Amino acid sequence: MPGYPIIQLPVKTITDLSQQTRQDVLAVEEPLEIRIEFGPADNRQVKNVSVTMRTPGHDAELAAGFLFTEGIVKQASDIDNISYSFIACAENKENTIVVSLDECIVPHLQNTERNFYTTSSCGVCGKGSISAIRTAGAMINDDHNVIDAELLYQLPEILRQRQDVFEETGGLHASALFTNVGELLLLREDVGRHNALDKVIGACLLGQSKLPLSEHILMLSGRASFELIQKAAMAGINIIAAVGAPSSLAVQLAREFNITLVGFLRNRRFNIYTAGHRILVPEYEITH
Amino acid sequence: MPGYPIIQLPVKTITDLSQQTRQDVLAVEEPLEIRIEFGPADNRQVKNVSVTMRTPGHDAELAAGFLFTEGIVKQASDIDNISYSFIACAENKENTIVVSLDECIVPHLQNTERNFYTTSSCGVCGKGSISAIRTAGAMINDDHNVIDAELLYQLPEILRQRQDVFEETGGLHASALFTNVGELLLLREDVGRHNALDKVIGACLLGQSKLPLSEHILMLSGRASFELIQKAAMAGINIIAAVGAPSSLAVQLAREFNITLVGFLRNRRFNIYTAGHRILVPEYEITH
Repeated sequence: MPGYPIIQLPVKTITDLSQQTRQDVLAVEEPLEIRIEFGPADNRQVKNVSVTMRTPGHDAELAAGFLFTEGIVKQASDIDNISYSFIACAENKENTIVVSLDECIVPHLQNTERNFYTTSSCGVCGKGSISAIRTAGAMINDDHNVIDAELLYQLPEILRQRQDVFEETGGLHASALFTNVGELLLLREDVGRHNALDKVIGACLLGQSKLPLSEHILMLSGRASFELIQKAAMAGINIIAAVGAPSSLAVQLAREFNITLVGFLRNRRFNIYTAGHRILVPEYEITH
Repeated sequence: MPGYPIIQLPVKTITDLSQQTRQDVLAVEEPLEIRIEFGPADNRQVKNVSVTMRTPGHDAELAAGFLFTEGIVKQASDIDNISYSFIACAENKENTIVVSLDECIVPHLQNTERNFYTTSSCGVCGKGSISAIRTAGAMINDDHNVIDAELLYQLPEILRQRQDVFEETGGLHASALFTNVGELLLLREDVGRHNALDKVIGACLLGQSKLPLSEHILMLSGRASFELIQKAAMAGINIIAAVGAPSSLAVQLAREFNITLVGFLRNRRFNIYTAGHRILVPEYEITH
């Protein structure tokens, strides 16, 4: 259903006592490209001003709010019309929105350009982004990196003990790199979760470990977004365990790249979203 | 101390039973501009490839990891040198880093440009960004918007009850707009916290409420970053209450714009970081 903020998918929940396959509900994450159309009636121009990873729904509000908080529009009457454009995306997803400005508005775009932040990945539909990563040579083929469920249970406590700054401020995301026998190699904290992961991967590139990180486990202190999976894939990481929930696009990307994605890892319990063959689970009676 | 990930500042902690001013510790948030230097020795070029809000520390790793996960560098030997540039910032902050690439490397920057995301605000030092917002006319002068501490205590429970998608997925940030008598006007959820806020402000711009939002309270389900305060300031919001921690730059911006910033609002307790005159607190015996 287009624009729906959640999707259902099957997930395997592992605990000390049971293994259960059930339907889980995920927050949808999809890119939205915001374009403005402006200029005199006989010479309208179109310009892309933003691509953001968002949860579908209320997209016209998102576009209007973005343009307002960037100072591109000052009041409602500056906007003539807001509509989706399906030309940009072969899949006909509602991932491009065009805000048509009043003829009299001359948007000040220098500011927006100067103020661009980068984060990795993207394109207008997830498919485009995934192809881009594949081109960059990030296919994960290593299926020999296998760990016990018991080892995963230990990681959140190790992370928590070592997350110094978070303990003090409550304000930081952490990325931690473990070996596949549970040894903590590197921990980095940052206000931006993508920065914490870039720091881990950058440290490895600069000599702390050898890339690709194919015999390791990446542990994330919070949620797993598309962007984090993309960065991990570039570094050849094939097991990712997050304390929080993954997004829909994170699961899709992990599946396409054969990356083992674990979420809600806490209190001796976790969900396996993709590539469960890298995790050895005790043989319980299986509950369906 | 440059590059230090935390700062101390005085904060007022309000509970049902006491009011206490004490030193609190915040995660530092500062912009980092990443530039690359590339090309033959007799014709080196410099290009800005990213501005990200980060916690200072491990900046060389962050820059290297960013360039690697963007596919701009493939291996450590592609990088000759990484160093700060102080020319870009009058305050001599370590907020611009230059990665000098090996002469043989021809960086593929089209990808990076296509893949830029926008978020609001920024410049190379916080000061620049704050001036930019001031120019956009977002000064908050309304000191008549005054609320009781008791009203603030109620908000997290209202937010939690109404945060439908989060309840199901554990994966979304929420922004909620309340009137100053505690009525919930609007709630928006998104995988990106800045999107949730843009949706709230966009909904108001498109007719759900009148801008500026000077008789309202903005409630954030998570942490308060610089970017969220910037967006709120643009909409004239003068009271912001977050369930999580604020960053250093969020506090700095809120102070400059006379915005009341509350953090850690949960379990009938909160911290006031700035502009406490908008919150009426019962007269306890004051503990210092």
